[in-house]
Amino acid sequence: METVKIGENERLDDLHRSGYMIIQNPKHFCFGIDAVLLTGFAAVNKNETVLDLGTGSGVIPLLLSAKTQAKHLSGIEIQEESARMAVRSIEYNGLTDKISIIQGDIKEIKALVSAHSFEVVTANPPYMEAGSGLPGAQSSKAIARHEILLSLDDVISAAAYSLKWRGRFYMVHRPSRLTDIIYTLRKHKLEPKRLRFVQPYADKEPNLLLIEAVYGGGKELKIMPTLIVYDSEGNYTKECYEIYYG
Amino acid sequence: METVKIGENERLDDLHRSGYMIIQNPKHFCFGIDAVLLTGFAAVNKNETVLDLGTGSGVIPLLLSAKTQAKHLSGIEIQEESARMAVRSIEYNGLTDKISIIQGDIKEIKALVSAHSFEVVTANPPYMEAGSGLPGAQSSKAIARHEILLSLDDVISAAAYSLKWRGRFYMVHRPSRLTDIIYTLRKHKLEPKRLRFVQPYADKEPNLLLIEAVYGGGKELKIMPTLIVYDSEGNYTKECYEIYYG
Repeated sequence: METVKIGENERLDDLHRSGYMIIQNPKHFCFGIDAVLLTGFAAVNKNETVLDLGTGSGVIPLLLSAKTQAKHLSGIEIQEESARMAVRSIEYNGLTDKISIIQGDIKEIKALVSAHSFEVVTANPPYMEAGSGLPGAQSSKAIARHEILLSLDDVISAAAYSLKWRGRFYMVHRPSRLTDIIYTLRKHKLEPKRLRFVQPYADKEPNLLLIEAVYGGGKELKIMPTLIVYDSEGNYTKECYEIYYG
Repeated sequence: METVKIGENERLDDLHRSGYMIIQNPKHFCFGIDAVLLTGFAAVNKNETVLDLGTGSGVIPLLLSAKTQAKHLSGIEIQEESARMAVRSIEYNGLTDKISIIQGDIKEIKALVSAHSFEVVTANPPYMEAGSGLPGAQSSKAIARHEILLSLDDVISAAAYSLKWRGRFYMVHRPSRLTDIIYTLRKHKLEPKRLRFVQPYADKEPNLLLIEAVYGGGKELKIMPTLIVYDSEGNYTKECYEIYYG
């Protein structure tokens, strides 16, 4: 582990799970609460294989490898520098046997992974539709946040291609995109099964949603009780604290 | 008003609005909290025209005529006895100039109303998919609760046909049908704009949803704070009390 290099603008952050650390560069996209909540929402059973679409610095496979008994986790990332950081974090934590990073374009998923080969697919994709308040430069952060290189349809279509029949897709996204999400999931035979809204405070509107869809699943959506992040004093609620540190 | 007959098995219930009463027969479907919450959710502006699909005993047009300054309200009901009860309630309340009941089949909407002629369409349709726990006999109550005579697609398609461009559709339904609802709305150019879940208690899962969709509307769905019906002591919450009696 001593041989892993931390670059000049990079930092080593504690994942608060199994002693794992993650290399991040504040000039690039750093993971937020969205990725953490997704790893609390995703149900991964023992010996299942997991694919994370748009893995960035690898936070989702790193956290899921600590939280679950998954057999193997793969992450696809288009941006070379992020993919390299993810690989170094995996090496740092001694997880090279368990997590693989594939540098490539999710739109070319058929060239990257075998069809219908994963039990679980996860995604924390760009939230903003292309054209909505888009910065001029296609910065690394902009690519992670806006549908510049990857549309919602691309992500969901790649999930349907990668999942085994009855496999589960877990995604975190914005409530304002719910119609697009549900419409596109069903279009690709991914039937929504569980939906959970996330509110920052008990009296605020939701600003995130977590959704589970099953490839080839039957109709019947369960709306879960809303997850509240902070109590009235600004501390994590018990449930949210458990997801971070429990 | 003295001339309106109340049948042997019928009763006269107080709507708690403008002194209006409604004739109901407990052997048939009687309105529930769903219809009341829908009239609290639907935004009807002065001089707008409203069409209620599957109006039953006419509770939605009766309540909306009390709560709003709608110009005219129409209700379509397929079951003859319900339609006749609705007409008698309208007569009883002296509202024959303001509310019309059309007895007919929503699937034949083109024969019943002019295309794209209403600003607002409302519906409290059957919740259960055909074939799901269906009683053998096609009783009046079963027809109101199950998609025997009318599917979700029929209701939404009729709403799209009846609404003016940018007109608003308001529906109450079950959260478990959210995927069907959103998928079918968008299929018929009715873009979901506001979605509100209703929970019986603060710590229970939602059992109803209220949705607003705009015919030809732009993408952007707003998830409203969840409406809680009862407080921990089993009394109506302030908001729910206001919807009933405010």
